[in-house]
Amino acid sequence: MSIINTFENLDVAKIDTGRKDRTGFPEVVFCPQKEDEYLLKIYKKLYETQGHVFGTRANSHQAQIVKKDFPQAEYDEVSKVLQILPAKKTELIGNIAVCTAGTADIPVAEECVKTIEYFGSKAFRFYDVGVSGIHRLFSQMNEINKANVVVAIAGMEGALASVLGGLVKVPVIAVPTSVGYGASFGGLSALLTMVNSCANGISVVNIDNGYGAGYISTQINRLAEKKDMFCS
Amino acid sequence: MSIINTFENLDVAKIDTGRKDRTGFPEVVFCPQKEDEYLLKIYKKLYETQGHVFGTRANSHQAQIVKKDFPQAEYDEVSKVLQILPAKKTELIGNIAVCTAGTADIPVAEECVKTIEYFGSKAFRFYDVGVSGIHRLFSQMNEINKANVVVAIAGMEGALASVLGGLVKVPVIAVPTSVGYGASFGGLSALLTMVNSCANGISVVNIDNGYGAGYISTQINRLAEKKDMFCS
Amino acid sequence: MSIINTFENLDVAKIDTGRKDRTGFPEVVFCPQKEDEYLLKIYKKLYETQGHVFGTRANSHQAQIVKKDFPQAEYDEVSKVLQILPAKKTELIGNIAVCTAGTADIPVAEECVKTIEYFGSKAFRFYDVGVSGIHRLFSQMNEINKANVVVAIAGMEGALASVLGGLVKVPVIAVPTSVGYGASFGGLSALLTMVNSCANGISVVNIDNGYGAGYISTQINRLAEKKDMFCS
Amino acid sequence: MSIINTFENLDVAKIDTGRKDRTGFPEVVFCPQKEDEYLLKIYKKLYETQGHVFGTRANSHQAQIVKKDFPQAEYDEVSKVLQILPAKKTELIGNIAVCTAGTADIPVAEECVKTIEYFGSKAFRFYDVGVSGIHRLFSQMNEINKANVVVAIAGMEGALASVLGGLVKVPVIAVPTSVGYGASFGGLSALLTMVNSCANGISVVNIDNGYGAGYISTQINRLAEKKDMFCS
Amino acid sequence: MSIINTFENLDVAKIDTGRKDRTGFPEVVFCPQKEDEYLLKIYKKLYETQGHVFGTRANSHQAQIVKKDFPQAEYDEVSKVLQILPAKKTELIGNIAVCTAGTADIPVAEECVKTIEYFGSKAFRFYDVGVSGIHRLFSQMNEINKANVVVAIAGMEGALASVLGGLVKVPVIAVPTSVGYGASFGGLSALLTMVNSCANGISVVNIDNGYGAGYISTQINRLAEKKDMFCS
Amino acid sequence: MSIINTFENLDVAKIDTGRKDRTGFPEVVFCPQKEDEYLLKIYKKLYETQGHVFGTRANSHQAQIVKKDFPQAEYDEVSKVLQILPAKKTELIGNIAVCTAGTADIPVAEECVKTIEYFGSKAFRFYDVGVSGIHRLFSQMNEINKANVVVAIAGMEGALASVLGGLVKVPVIAVPTSVGYGASFGGLSALLTMVNSCANGISVVNIDNGYGAGYISTQINRLAEKKDMFCS
Amino acid sequence: MSIINTFENLDVAKIDTGRKDRTGFPEVVFCPQKEDEYLLKIYKKLYETQGHVFGTRANSHQAQIVKKDFPQAEYDEVSKVLQILPAKKTELIGNIAVCTAGTADIPVAEECVKTIEYFGSKAFRFYDVGVSGIHRLFSQMNEINKANVVVAIAGMEGALASVLGGLVKVPVIAVPTSVGYGASFGGLSALLTMVNSCANGISVVNIDNGYGAGYISTQINRLAEKKDMFCS
Amino acid sequence: MSIINTFENLDVAKIDTGRKDRTGFPEVVFCPQKEDEYLLKIYKKLYETQGHVFGTRANSHQAQIVKKDFPQAEYDEVSKVLQILPAKKTELIGNIAVCTAGTADIPVAEECVKTIEYFGSKAFRFYDVGVSGIHRLFSQMNEINKANVVVAIAGMEGALASVLGGLVKVPVIAVPTSVGYGASFGGLSALLTMVNSCANGISVVNIDNGYGAGYISTQINRLAEKKDMFCS
Repeated sequence: MSIINTFENLDVAKIDTGRKDRTGFPEVVFCPQKEDEYLLKIYKKLYETQGHVFGTRANSHQAQIVKKDFPQAEYDEVSKVLQILPAKKTELIGNIAVCTAGTADIPVAEECVKTIEYFGSKAFRFYDVGVSGIHRLFSQMNEINKANVVVAIAGMEGALASVLGGLVKVPVIAVPTSVGYGASFGGLSALLTMVNSCANGISVVNIDNGYGAGYISTQINRLAEKKDMFCS
Repeated sequence: MSIINTFENLDVAKIDTGRKDRTGFPEVVFCPQKEDEYLLKIYKKLYETQGHVFGTRANSHQAQIVKKDFPQAEYDEVSKVLQILPAKKTELIGNIAVCTAGTADIPVAEECVKTIEYFGSKAFRFYDVGVSGIHRLFSQMNEINKANVVVAIAGMEGALASVLGGLVKVPVIAVPTSVGYGASFGGLSALLTMVNSCANGISVVNIDNGYGAGYISTQINRLAEKKDMFCS
Repeated sequence: MSIINTFENLDVAKIDTGRKDRTGFPEVVFCPQKEDEYLLKIYKKLYETQGHVFGTRANSHQAQIVKKDFPQAEYDEVSKVLQILPAKKTELIGNIAVCTAGTADIPVAEECVKTIEYFGSKAFRFYDVGVSGIHRLFSQMNEINKANVVVAIAGMEGALASVLGGLVKVPVIAVPTSVGYGASFGGLSALLTMVNSCANGISVVNIDNGYGAGYISTQINRLAEKKDMFCS
Repeated sequence: MSIINTFENLDVAKIDTGRKDRTGFPEVVFCPQKEDEYLLKIYKKLYETQGHVFGTRANSHQAQIVKKDFPQAEYDEVSKVLQILPAKKTELIGNIAVCTAGTADIPVAEECVKTIEYFGSKAFRFYDVGVSGIHRLFSQMNEINKANVVVAIAGMEGALASVLGGLVKVPVIAVPTSVGYGASFGGLSALLTMVNSCANGISVVNIDNGYGAGYISTQINRLAEKKDMFCS
Repeated sequence: MSIINTFENLDVAKIDTGRKDRTGFPEVVFCPQKEDEYLLKIYKKLYETQGHVFGTRANSHQAQIVKKDFPQAEYDEVSKVLQILPAKKTELIGNIAVCTAGTADIPVAEECVKTIEYFGSKAFRFYDVGVSGIHRLFSQMNEINKANVVVAIAGMEGALASVLGGLVKVPVIAVPTSVGYGASFGGLSALLTMVNSCANGISVVNIDNGYGAGYISTQINRLAEKKDMFCS
Repeated sequence: MSIINTFENLDVAKIDTGRKDRTGFPEVVFCPQKEDEYLLKIYKKLYETQGHVFGTRANSHQAQIVKKDFPQAEYDEVSKVLQILPAKKTELIGNIAVCTAGTADIPVAEECVKTIEYFGSKAFRFYDVGVSGIHRLFSQMNEINKANVVVAIAGMEGALASVLGGLVKVPVIAVPTSVGYGASFGGLSALLTMVNSCANGISVVNIDNGYGAGYISTQINRLAEKKDMFCS
Repeated sequence: MSIINTFENLDVAKIDTGRKDRTGFPEVVFCPQKEDEYLLKIYKKLYETQGHVFGTRANSHQAQIVKKDFPQAEYDEVSKVLQILPAKKTELIGNIAVCTAGTADIPVAEECVKTIEYFGSKAFRFYDVGVSGIHRLFSQMNEINKANVVVAIAGMEGALASVLGGLVKVPVIAVPTSVGYGASFGGLSALLTMVNSCANGISVVNIDNGYGAGYISTQINRLAEKKDMFCS
Repeated sequence: MSIINTFENLDVAKIDTGRKDRTGFPEVVFCPQKEDEYLLKIYKKLYETQGHVFGTRANSHQAQIVKKDFPQAEYDEVSKVLQILPAKKTELIGNIAVCTAGTADIPVAEECVKTIEYFGSKAFRFYDVGVSGIHRLFSQMNEINKANVVVAIAGMEGALASVLGGLVKVPVIAVPTSVGYGASFGGLSALLTMVNSCANGISVVNIDNGYGAGYISTQINRLAEKKDMFCS
């Protein structure tokens, strides 16, 4: 294997500019705990290299800092995504169903949706369809069954993933959330539920990892749609 | 409060013969690790006092020991219940629905059913109705909805309890089982699922505790049927 | 089974307006992390549909927001319950004993009591009767024994549930609380105690889940009182 | 949604014969703890219905029992898969790379490979390519990069999944194994590693769940190959 | 401080023959996993040095090995204590109450009692007095209150220690046991209960550590009785 | 047993005024989360009944509230003890050695010392004698060996208790503290260390429970000094 | 062994002034939770004794306090190290490679580097070389392979240590960090990864313990360079 | 970096024959769960390549299998090491002190010693020097202080590492063992103790990992002795 030896030294950070060639996805920014000046430098470098930047878990202060230099940057209060979109909009492809058990899971779901769209796929929202009122889910199954891949986002006991797994033909990417209290132990309960699912076709990402679910569901959607050349 | 000071010293054990008056339920026997001679002594003492004995988690060797002195004793290989039934059969009352997610949960369910029947209530079995094929559950809901209380028994991720909780008007007693492997951690995953359920009307007993679920569901069934004088 | 397909789409949320018919209980509001405008919208929709609203774990700011539009709303600082009571008071039925081990468990107990009363049952308080001074509990047992169901609320080591389980004929719903420090691990210790209780007739809800205990104890109390038509 | 109400009552079990229509995959058998007679009954029923049967985690005794009635059954000592293949062989489609960190992970990998093949996809083996001698992995990357989906199987610290995630464009399904000792805690360490991976495009199934990884990777492979009609 | 530099090299082991002078207690033997020949060598060395030997958790095979050379050795099947008593019997001093919640806790209690007696104190047994039938405990409180120190031994939820702590003036040494199943997690539940006790005057030793409880309760009893010169 | 039925109803709280007769120790106040007015009411009631009050974990605001009504109240910033001492000073008895591993453990140690003194015993401080510089401990052993009981307070890995246990004749009460970071998990590491100690004569109280260690060490010291009538 | 009995009593603290002779390293200061006055006293005492002081995890307020009296003190915002360097600079010896997986691990790495330099060794930084873009690491391996010892610092899944372990001849000191979220559980995931590493030559220090890694890697570097007389 | 692309495909296994050049250590064999034929094939291949083989955790059956073909193979019952030594003995270098807390830790220690010797360094044994009788350790400190690196092996609470860390100038490699019972949780308690050590210069390997400790201590010893060309 020839390793693509492409990255840029940005002070201490090594911006992985070869990542898009290697993995089909550009480098993104995980904003928490990055200092203002340093964050801005990364946004600038990435914008310069690729013409668009996608950052997750930004706070509103960070959004202001970036917007000063990039007035076109968009910040979404719910998902905490801070992005500079490419000048030319790409047509989104395929169909990814993003489902949540409750309304409290929506911030994670929106991070997932924004990720999917940034990476060029189409996401459809099915929110608040948890198993405590399971008819709400059933009323949406015809639509959900049109997707190439389903994202199931749930906190507390996380049973949504298992129910979905038994009802669809396509892979289910399960996202446990930290929604809950007491013995939910910050999402551990939902994580264990999803990992132990009696239903087939389920695999799991980290607690609250809407970005990760968006990434892998995009990979699957691209495979299904035979378009693996994003933004190019 | 006047405490009913009635128990019998049986060597080191203190047989709680006043329990029936105090709690409405006779003393039962937890068989594991009890030595042959000692187990037999307890069965004799309880039979003498109350005319019937109920033991849980007996092994087949213990069954043989007891059957030598009590040929009428019945041992059930699945539930591991070893009982000497009362001479006169009582009519069973009410309606308790005992549901399992899979077939591997049946031993726990049968311990529950046997307990319910010994304590004088009627149990109906709904086995293998787990959420990975949820239509199996729905096909039984009309029957399940006739119960005064529902017992939901499930291992792995234990999602059955949450789904049932959203579909019935009566209390759901959830029993996590140790069925599963890997991250099920001997039933911990199912226990957390059930404790964190997003559905209402669910409370939880110990892992594999079919007896405990049978006991409390009998209490609830008696309350509903207004017959709290069992075997008297 | 025919699933009652009744809910209202409220932006992303799907208000489960069919829940009362399906489960015998109206939809309630879990207030934490709900944004002001959105919370108010839910209170309005539910008030419009059912003429009363019950919300748990509201903070005082949320109380003010709701009170601006609903001056008749009542907010209780201890239980954090924020409710709009129905115009016509229903007569409360039955008897539920709500017991706490210490005074620090009272907020959870008050959430439980308020839930019981909102759902139409009668609650009696037995607070600060923990096992470190067990005579306090015994002095109340005559009264506690009049209940159809007992709620045992305790943090730290949570031994109250086991002691109560050995003294009453009716089901005990155990609520572990996060009261304690060090190795109480946010209520885990009390949860394990209650799940492992050597006494019979105990089942357990989530840590600090006063609402959940109120719900299931109401179900049991209704069964005992043969009045399952609340507010209708 | 119309739920396909098709299952057969086999004593207590409810064989989900409608599963293939609903999910695209036939019912399979999880053999552990199933009694001889009962196991045979399930194999017969499934063979009758679908003309082939796939069972996981069978022991050699169970293999003998089934082979008496089905001499054509094949039992694999390594993967513990016990199957009756369809009379007519289907051509396998696509490309799934199944990688293991060490040789001790091979039983899990073989369960995965057998599952993939039974469900009609092509699997390629890349065994013993763990990160402690990372050049072994690199020497295989050209081949691995031809796959539609990669399965990464590893115990101990489970770092293989992260390294693969950074080197491929397609989804990585990570399988933690219970290989290891001491602080591997039966696979918990590898599970946490994989869930927390710093690389993108990774999602995780249960510890030792080769079958589950085979199932979801087949789903993804089918999507990529546009052939979702297996065995029909 | 002058450290007493007295021990004997016995192959690899360093027999702490100075321990009695330093701590007031002779060296004892923890038998598990010690090979026959090596175990015998230790018994011989200690017998030679001190004229008596006390071993815990011996199995019956080990008992036979030792009895061949020391026919006067006594082996107790319940406590698994294997001891060679001193030729001259010492009069036992003081009063230690050893209480168990159930009969399954008795092996741990007997290890404790045997330890107490070997170290020269008097133990009184109060077995099967757990909180599920709390009147059994109350009937013994007059006797228990005569002790200088109380040992509370309980598995499952371990509530006995808390109740005792609220009823006595003297220290309670709590011993969690591994009795139980499911969420008792091998004694962890009882350990957490006891460490978190709301009652005062309780401290805790390791799970199933009857020997350790016997040791520290002997220390306390000696302090109370002003006789710290054992066997001399 | 006759249970001393003496307590006072203070709104919801039941002040256990009979506790001193029953256990030899007066009721004390655990201040956290008690509201101002309610805290003051308790201090007043206890002062009225017993002429002195001892409260733990008070914050400085609570100290001010109490001092307004009781100018003689003393608040110690380090231990967070807020007490109203009895008018007449009692002579302290016996000898309790309170040892800490580091200086960060001192707040817990001071809570312990203040408790010991309030309950009438003499405490001697041996601070910062942890095992990383073990000569500091040895230089104090002559003094420590004069005590009737030793309290060993340590966070991080908590090894101090084991070392002390091997060097003294009297009981060691071990207090794990939450001092540390990372894998100390809030004191869990030190708790496990102390519970698993290879040294004898050690028993353990809850993490950071200086009060509990002071209480039980006072009980032991009283037994040794034959003066169990405190303040009477 | 003759224990070097040298320490200074500083109020409660016992400054271990003999440590340098005993262990080859001077005493350092762990700043968190130390009160201003007390911290200053320690800095003064140590400066007086050894002419330089090294403190870790200082906050900026503490830096100001110390700088008032010691204007030459240096405070580093990233590593939180607050030091007074010796008047005469020592030449640094050897070669220690300090590697991080990401940029968020840099504060821990800088604490490590500062520690190494204070103790007289030479550190080289290799930051942001984590396994998700493994070519970044490979591009540095020629340089890393010049070190006597390698420090591998990583959060999330911590796979960097395993990869490094397979590529170098010298010991790898692994430092898990609390970088991550969800199932990283504050560094537990990375800790388990590193402890379970399939690669050889890896040992692990506490989560975020840059100081500890600096200390032990200095010991190893000194051994390699045959210069164990630091600052003397 | 140029990766040394040298390994041999042995069926599924990839024997890392380039490892010695890359890391300075030959490949070794982890025997558990390897089937007879396969194990023998590996021993043959390695013997052929390097003239000597070292296997850990072999059982006696595996020893017999290997001895049939290699009568010169040596099997040690205590350490479970099964090795074929090189024809020409190498002179061992340096000094590594291997210490255990108790005698039950010796199997782990012997695996460590055998590893050290196979890799060409000199090990000295200091067994049964645990902290419960700390004078045994002190009597050995003069000898221990001659080592280039110290291995501290302990189960139960694992305090030995901390005490050693405060007494030596060289690195301490700590090995937690699974020796203990109850709350030792299979070595978790000792692992946490060692990771959280208050002493400096300690790093930790996996539970029971005598081989790993032998490996890294050899690396350190070689650095100190400047002889990194083993067996060449």
